[in-house]
Amino acid sequence: MFAAGQAVGVPVRTPQQERSRATQARLLEATVECLVERGWSGTTTTVVATMAGVSRGAQLHHYPTKASLVMAAVEHLAERRAEEIRTEAAAIPPGPQRLDGVVDMLAAAFTGPLYMAALEVWIAARTDPELRAALVPLEARVGREMHRLTVELLGADERNPGVREAIQATLDLLRGLGVANLLSDDTARRTALLAAWKRQLATLL
Amino acid sequence: MFAAGQAVGVPVRTPQQERSRATQARLLEATVECLVERGWSGTTTTVVATMAGVSRGAQLHHYPTKASLVMAAVEHLAERRAEEIRTEAAAIPPGPQRLDGVVDMLAAAFTGPLYMAALEVWIAARTDPELRAALVPLEARVGREMHRLTVELLGADERNPGVREAIQATLDLLRGLGVANLLSDDTARRTALLAAWKRQLATLL
Repeated sequence: MFAAGQAVGVPVRTPQQERSRATQARLLEATVECLVERGWSGTTTTVVATMAGVSRGAQLHHYPTKASLVMAAVEHLAERRAEEIRTEAAAIPPGPQRLDGVVDMLAAAFTGPLYMAALEVWIAARTDPELRAALVPLEARVGREMHRLTVELLGADERNPGVREAIQATLDLLRGLGVANLLSDDTARRTALLAAWKRQLATLL
Repeated sequence: MFAAGQAVGVPVRTPQQERSRATQARLLEATVECLVERGWSGTTTTVVATMAGVSRGAQLHHYPTKASLVMAAVEHLAERRAEEIRTEAAAIPPGPQRLDGVVDMLAAAFTGPLYMAALEVWIAARTDPELRAALVPLEARVGREMHRLTVELLGADERNPGVREAIQATLDLLRGLGVANLLSDDTARRTALLAAWKRQLATLL
């Protein structure tokens, strides 16, 4: 929705609308950066406006509250993550090694900064009823899209028995590996574990 | 260490020491409860002292900072979780259904309040260098103990190839399922997924 590439192909907007979208995109990118670097409690609308180089007035105009800013940022972030995954996946050659490449790429996404930012918001929403109510439908949509994308990248056929569960287990395992990597570098253990997982997944698909 | 049952069997302490331990235990239980109900940002030493029914002075004496209180609570929490798991596991009869029972019990632990409290602290530590430095060795120890406990409960033999990775994958999968259950009830999906996982795990062990 806010992906930079899309605005270019849609020349029907006025310059004012283009500026608005550029301002929004800067605010959302700064929100993600702020969540990654300072966590939920260190993320404020004032800090985000400063990081984005956007006036306080413009920030309040587009996203009047921290909740509205963070909600839009999570959506932006999910789209950016899916786009990055799609682009990287296109570079993985077909053949028997493709499954390994796709799993490695997904593992990198679930241990990368964008997933850390999402976790910050997810955890905060657990004890914030307003944010939680707003996030639940978004989480369901993001989850479905990530599942669909993984099926597509692996060329899996979910009509075969057990395939749907194998894709879900892969994504839940990667979520868990993201959490296990929060405080310390878990790369060595993760690499060994995923080597075994890839062999298993290949037989399940 | 702070488990209520242990103090009973160790009658060498003075009444003063017993009172101190009881006060500490109350503070740590209140910290866990506070993290579960109010999250990291809603947890303060003042709120915890009030919830525990402990004077501000006594709280400051035992745990002078939020970091020291939370660190001790995480350790307490890990021990309490392991103890609960051990007790529940003892009630699962041996035989072919035991694996299913153990996995269900572990899944309940990773979607329960104690794991939510741990996640709150883990995420906060990501962007708090002091807390992070203190938590990293504790996280490693808790992770090792949870692994060892799972091996023991499943009666698995890690000398067989692939068994170690299968245990690790089970625990990482459960971590991921805990995250997937943060904002909404994921029970139906989790139950179906774990049914498939149990069959797979049985062949791997």
